[in-house]
Amino acid sequence: MTSSFTGLGGKQGLSPGTLVSSPGREQNETRITLLRWREDEFSILGVDDPASPAQDGGDYTVRWMRIRGFSDLSVVNTVGGLFGIHPLQLEDAVNRHDRPKAELDEESVFVTLSSIFPGTGGPPVHGHLALFLKPGILISFEEGDTPLFDSVVERMKRGGSRLRRYGPDYLFYALMDAVVDGYFATLEDMADRIEKLEEDVVEGDGSGLLERIHSMRNEMLLFRRSVWPMRELVGNLTRTGDSAFSSVTLPYIRDLYDHAVQVVETSETLREMLSAMLDTYLSSTSNRMNEVMKVLTIIATIFMPLTFIAGIYGMNFEHMPELGKAWAYPAVLGSMVLIGFGMGFWFRKKGWL
Amino acid sequence: MTSSFTGLGGKQGLSPGTLVSSPGREQNETRITLLRWREDEFSILGVDDPASPAQDGGDYTVRWMRIRGFSDLSVVNTVGGLFGIHPLQLEDAVNRHDRPKAELDEESVFVTLSSIFPGTGGPPVHGHLALFLKPGILISFEEGDTPLFDSVVERMKRGGSRLRRYGPDYLFYALMDAVVDGYFATLEDMADRIEKLEEDVVEGDGSGLLERIHSMRNEMLLFRRSVWPMRELVGNLTRTGDSAFSSVTLPYIRDLYDHAVQVVETSETLREMLSAMLDTYLSSTSNRMNEVMKVLTIIATIFMPLTFIAGIYGMNFEHMPELGKAWAYPAVLGSMVLIGFGMGFWFRKKGWL
Amino acid sequence: MTSSFTGLGGKQGLSPGTLVSSPGREQNETRITLLRWREDEFSILGVDDPASPAQDGGDYTVRWMRIRGFSDLSVVNTVGGLFGIHPLQLEDAVNRHDRPKAELDEESVFVTLSSIFPGTGGPPVHGHLALFLKPGILISFEEGDTPLFDSVVERMKRGGSRLRRYGPDYLFYALMDAVVDGYFATLEDMADRIEKLEEDVVEGDGSGLLERIHSMRNEMLLFRRSVWPMRELVGNLTRTGDSAFSSVTLPYIRDLYDHAVQVVETSETLREMLSAMLDTYLSSTSNRMNEVMKVLTIIATIFMPLTFIAGIYGMNFEHMPELGKAWAYPAVLGSMVLIGFGMGFWFRKKGWL
Amino acid sequence: MTSSFTGLGGKQGLSPGTLVSSPGREQNETRITLLRWREDEFSILGVDDPASPAQDGGDYTVRWMRIRGFSDLSVVNTVGGLFGIHPLQLEDAVNRHDRPKAELDEESVFVTLSSIFPGTGGPPVHGHLALFLKPGILISFEEGDTPLFDSVVERMKRGGSRLRRYGPDYLFYALMDAVVDGYFATLEDMADRIEKLEEDVVEGDGSGLLERIHSMRNEMLLFRRSVWPMRELVGNLTRTGDSAFSSVTLPYIRDLYDHAVQVVETSETLREMLSAMLDTYLSSTSNRMNEVMKVLTIIATIFMPLTFIAGIYGMNFEHMPELGKAWAYPAVLGSMVLIGFGMGFWFRKKGWL
Amino acid sequence: MTSSFTGLGGKQGLSPGTLVSSPGREQNETRITLLRWREDEFSILGVDDPASPAQDGGDYTVRWMRIRGFSDLSVVNTVGGLFGIHPLQLEDAVNRHDRPKAELDEESVFVTLSSIFPGTGGPPVHGHLALFLKPGILISFEEGDTPLFDSVVERMKRGGSRLRRYGPDYLFYALMDAVVDGYFATLEDMADRIEKLEEDVVEGDGSGLLERIHSMRNEMLLFRRSVWPMRELVGNLTRTGDSAFSSVTLPYIRDLYDHAVQVVETSETLREMLSAMLDTYLSSTSNRMNEVMKVLTIIATIFMPLTFIAGIYGMNFEHMPELGKAWAYPAVLGSMVLIGFGMGFWFRKKGWL
Repeated sequence: MTSSFTGLGGKQGLSPGTLVSSPGREQNETRITLLRWREDEFSILGVDDPASPAQDGGDYTVRWMRIRGFSDLSVVNTVGGLFGIHPLQLEDAVNRHDRPKAELDEESVFVTLSSIFPGTGGPPVHGHLALFLKPGILISFEEGDTPLFDSVVERMKRGGSRLRRYGPDYLFYALMDAVVDGYFATLEDMADRIEKLEEDVVEGDGSGLLERIHSMRNEMLLFRRSVWPMRELVGNLTRTGDSAFSSVTLPYIRDLYDHAVQVVETSETLREMLSAMLDTYLSSTSNRMNEVMKVLTIIATIFMPLTFIAGIYGMNFEHMPELGKAWAYPAVLGSMVLIGFGMGFWFRKKGWL
Repeated sequence: MTSSFTGLGGKQGLSPGTLVSSPGREQNETRITLLRWREDEFSILGVDDPASPAQDGGDYTVRWMRIRGFSDLSVVNTVGGLFGIHPLQLEDAVNRHDRPKAELDEESVFVTLSSIFPGTGGPPVHGHLALFLKPGILISFEEGDTPLFDSVVERMKRGGSRLRRYGPDYLFYALMDAVVDGYFATLEDMADRIEKLEEDVVEGDGSGLLERIHSMRNEMLLFRRSVWPMRELVGNLTRTGDSAFSSVTLPYIRDLYDHAVQVVETSETLREMLSAMLDTYLSSTSNRMNEVMKVLTIIATIFMPLTFIAGIYGMNFEHMPELGKAWAYPAVLGSMVLIGFGMGFWFRKKGWL
Repeated sequence: MTSSFTGLGGKQGLSPGTLVSSPGREQNETRITLLRWREDEFSILGVDDPASPAQDGGDYTVRWMRIRGFSDLSVVNTVGGLFGIHPLQLEDAVNRHDRPKAELDEESVFVTLSSIFPGTGGPPVHGHLALFLKPGILISFEEGDTPLFDSVVERMKRGGSRLRRYGPDYLFYALMDAVVDGYFATLEDMADRIEKLEEDVVEGDGSGLLERIHSMRNEMLLFRRSVWPMRELVGNLTRTGDSAFSSVTLPYIRDLYDHAVQVVETSETLREMLSAMLDTYLSSTSNRMNEVMKVLTIIATIFMPLTFIAGIYGMNFEHMPELGKAWAYPAVLGSMVLIGFGMGFWFRKKGWL
Repeated sequence: MTSSFTGLGGKQGLSPGTLVSSPGREQNETRITLLRWREDEFSILGVDDPASPAQDGGDYTVRWMRIRGFSDLSVVNTVGGLFGIHPLQLEDAVNRHDRPKAELDEESVFVTLSSIFPGTGGPPVHGHLALFLKPGILISFEEGDTPLFDSVVERMKRGGSRLRRYGPDYLFYALMDAVVDGYFATLEDMADRIEKLEEDVVEGDGSGLLERIHSMRNEMLLFRRSVWPMRELVGNLTRTGDSAFSSVTLPYIRDLYDHAVQVVETSETLREMLSAMLDTYLSSTSNRMNEVMKVLTIIATIFMPLTFIAGIYGMNFEHMPELGKAWAYPAVLGSMVLIGFGMGFWFRKKGWL
Repeated sequence: MTSSFTGLGGKQGLSPGTLVSSPGREQNETRITLLRWREDEFSILGVDDPASPAQDGGDYTVRWMRIRGFSDLSVVNTVGGLFGIHPLQLEDAVNRHDRPKAELDEESVFVTLSSIFPGTGGPPVHGHLALFLKPGILISFEEGDTPLFDSVVERMKRGGSRLRRYGPDYLFYALMDAVVDGYFATLEDMADRIEKLEEDVVEGDGSGLLERIHSMRNEMLLFRRSVWPMRELVGNLTRTGDSAFSSVTLPYIRDLYDHAVQVVETSETLREMLSAMLDTYLSSTSNRMNEVMKVLTIIATIFMPLTFIAGIYGMNFEHMPELGKAWAYPAVLGSMVLIGFGMGFWFRKKGWL
């Protein structure tokens, strides 16, 4: 849990802008791929020396450099220097603990965000991403292999896609959209699990409910923490005056904003449902305790007086005239039955039975 | 529940602006109707080929094209192209999961919202709607048959109505107003059921109270989620400078805004009453448990000492001088009665009886 | 309760601006009175034909037309037409469910609000009011007879009052002030009843506490719902540039604003006290249960072992050597006393006694 | 309590600006003192006729007129007329229920606020104050004798103090600062008592804890209600353009603002600690109940089976072969011991012992 | 605790701007060190007479005067006078209770803040700091020895560091960054301890859980109280137009702002986790009580009827025909076994076993 919360593990005392790999987490090997295309051509290149592709031809509409895995920070440094990325932005790009944020100037956009997708049956998987958009090129820093971007690459491969025709700002949008799609998928998965949990709670089904509610709440907290700043972040993107986004792309960015707001609001609603569920769980626990107590009370209230009567006639006094009567035993038994049924009727009248 | 919460079911990986029908929900067949009128004439036409009506005569004050059911998305696409609706807006129009929103430019207004009306005895029915207003024409996208609009059509059929005299912006208002009326009807229905629930809670009447409170809270959450953005949405409409709404219609839009605010505030109040009711329910559960415990305690506290005394004289020691005395048995019985009444008085003094 | 929450009872499907009387509520008969005065003269006239007074003389400083009871909506309509009140405002004036609001233009002010005064020993009485201020005349729509305005009429009758000297804007202020005074009186009454309730809770006095707290909370919710919009409403009045209020009246309006803020804040404080009281009530319930359990536990823990010992010597084995000893019986009794006192000491040490 | 919450006790129906003394509260006798000084001179005069001092010499740097006690409202009225204080401000000055507020114009500042200082061992003492600052003179209205201002008078008496050199705006600051110091002292006192309470809660020490927490929360609510508006009030003072405060005094006013913010935030923190304490109290109550239940359960679970066994061999059947065996009694006793210890081990394994 | 909350311990009645040492806290001895450097030179001097270094040479890029410990307030006063620090700022610098704040003018920045670092296994250690930045010099007031700044000094000693090249504004940033790093370390430590606590809660491990949660919440409250104003404080620094920070340093200040926001949000998340944990703790307590009650109920429900049966045949009536039958004893034993198992099955069916 620690590593999910704190920002500078082991970095204290270092000069700011110094790249360090996140501790306590095996690093994915650094791989660089260059995707480039124009309307009629598309190619994917593996890149060994990041210094080369920058020079490499200007007649492509879009170039997308993917940097995956941060084990080799010198490569990251080289790329940063090559494209004029500020050291502090580079630091944010590889530091998985940083909060999502956007920085815009006249011609470049820098964004860090969390990629989240549903884990298989368990808590969602959080990753770290950074996108740097400059005229003609988009550089993405991905902590690991994000399956979210596969669909974008697929669409790109098909001719005739908007991705082929529009500039890198549309690619930027497409990647952001893929990330937000991941949020929706995560919410859907969480909603499914909450629904399942809810059924179990209402049916009172079982042990471990409390632990499941508790870990669900923590998942929700972490999700909200990653997603909450997105509203402001994308909102900032829509407010850029005349800069990085073309007028063709801007409506898409606005649509993205609507989706970001929807993600935040849906997560709020889920959170409130979760909290309503906890209330219900507590109430049903309390109801069940009530039922247990009633059973105990009914049994005790019926048998204690009866046992007391039996106790009386078990006393060994010599002068207990009833003991000698032939009708005494059946009479006592009968009155015991009467008392028992009387108690029963009383409980029924009180609504306990 | 899932389908109520998540936004892009099955759409991940598709190009944005691609129309897909909402999954897990049978689609209503697509029907198109064209309503058109001037002060002295009114007609309703079924439309088979959506491409035709656009050309069809310009001498009507208002034309209203109703598209109901989204099973045939190609029709939706055709209409969108015909009237210059942005693909992203078309997507929002048919995507039932999208959050209510308004988009305005100089001469058109695009609005998506939820129609809600009370279910018969059960949770309210949520639907999806979109309205697109352009000079001279209003296009409505309705997920299913919304009974809410029947009254508008009725008023239109009658001559002399404002609907006949004013432009499509007034029709736009009338439809929005019908939707908000649906919210009020839903609130009224919810308030009735909450009142019924409240009576049952105060009377402690019965099983299933917890489930009813719980599902009421979830209904309320879903209602609020749909209605909450309406305040901002209609607020935006009132703030349009000189554009889509004529000065005659603008006061009505402002009135609509007041109603939207009232819907939101009333739902807040209902929500707080619901939460107060849960508190009361929990307290009364706890009170009832208290009562159960008191009964148990009183019974046990009276009979345990008595049974113990009976147990003493049931012991088989040979040298128990009391056993031979003739007065001993009545004396023991008498002291038992005394102890019992003593306990009773003590409980009465403590306020337990 | 329903009628307190929903806004358009039975109006769905009607054209907006259509006046309907609020359903489920007997209407007060419509009566119209005209009060008019200048510094040296004051008269009250009953009005049968609302169309006449408008023409009636312009040499009065102030005219105040009171319309009480909305049973005859045609009269309301006539008055509205006579003074140029917008149909939507007329609708708000007679619709008791509408939210308090203020509408201002250059020379007129329209305000709807709730009049609230303390019920005798029960929940406060909510009413509906509307005020329409134009140069030279103020028109008030009152759902019933509001005793709140009696004092204003009294002050008016006395010569030398500011009401006589200033214009209708000061009368407008005086009426608003009377309404706000009603809020204060209601708060005072509620505070008294909350204080009484609090004493009963702390003393644990009695049955029905939960119901009283619950209905108090609902009263508070309804009060806040009516009063909350007043802050914004009166705030809007203070912000009017150069329009409806003269510079003499403006400081009074600002004072009114301070009082509105005070009403809202005081109701917040009362609400928090109420919620603190509920906590205390729940805690004291829980404490009392604790006490009950302790009594039960002490009794059971003392008598169960003793009864067990008595049970042992009540067994009928032939070879129980102790039974024949003369000292056995007193010895067993003695050890029982020891065990009993031992348990007592143990409980005292644990702090249970 | 009533008198702490409601604003216009008995004033309903009176003309606004009419001075009435607060009901239900004996009024302090009205006394007027005039303090005046320049760098080298300082004098305190008792004033009988408030009309005289105004004329009285213009060559003092600062004059401070203290009006203490509001029993004689005609005096207050005279002073108000003399210095041109608005009747509504005068009303606020003597009405102890009014909310703290500040009114500024080009050359005067009017402020009402609450003075609070710690009661000796009990709840804090709330008072009412008003300050009216004009060029050359400051007029203070004090409900009673506020010990808070004694230190200011002391500092004034000493030569060389800033109070001697600067104008009445600095005196204004000094008085406000004294009031805020009173808030800090109150917070300190409350913090001490909360700390004491906390120790008692953690140690589970005793009866009356609930009442103490409850009244502490109410004290806190009243404190916050008085102090909360101070942030905005002093904030308004700092924002005055070029007016009432000289550039020498302005930094002090800003410092005052920081202190006001600190008071509000500290009271928030204390409130949250109080609420955390209530949670802890409830939990510990619940824990204690749990412990009680465990004791009961252990005792019952051990002795019920044993008593049952004893009961079996206490039956009077003629054919119970075990009864005649010599080893039966010790065997039964032995097995009872075994069962007892077995239960004990089971509870230990479950962690109950 | 008191001293953590209140602001002016013992200062009431003193003239503002009067320096007093914080009471109830032994003061660290005042030590002054002067660090000065240019790109190629670096020296640390102990300073005895604070009046001397100000004159001392202007050819250093940066001079940093560290004042540690406030026991000798006259020294602080001297330094303040020397560099033209406002008396109120000096007071804030040494008053450990003051709220973090920033004051900026054209060429100087004054900041007070809390230094927090994790205590060893216990609550975090709070300290007080003030930084005063002027062209060419930075003056730091440290309540005690803050280990946080050691790393800055280390980096400074190494040649080639940005600290050597940039001006005192960068040093200012570096110190602020060190303080924020301390917050992160504290959060990390708290997160670790919360995680540990969470494990113990889920495992139900033990006594003292409640106290630990409680003190953790109080720690969190104090942490948030110190850290909360940082967001606004650093936000103000970033908004300075053209003033104290050079364009080289400004991006670093913005990065600092991001970190401050992250600290605040992370502490919010931790706080919510803590509160979720309390809920879980309470629920699990309640669950455990439920389990205890079930055991009690099962035992009582099984043995009470059996004991009653044994009691019946222990009665001493002369005419109890069953007693003479040879099969009676085994039959009774058998039916007891049947009843016992029957109860067992019933509980299993109810899900209690």
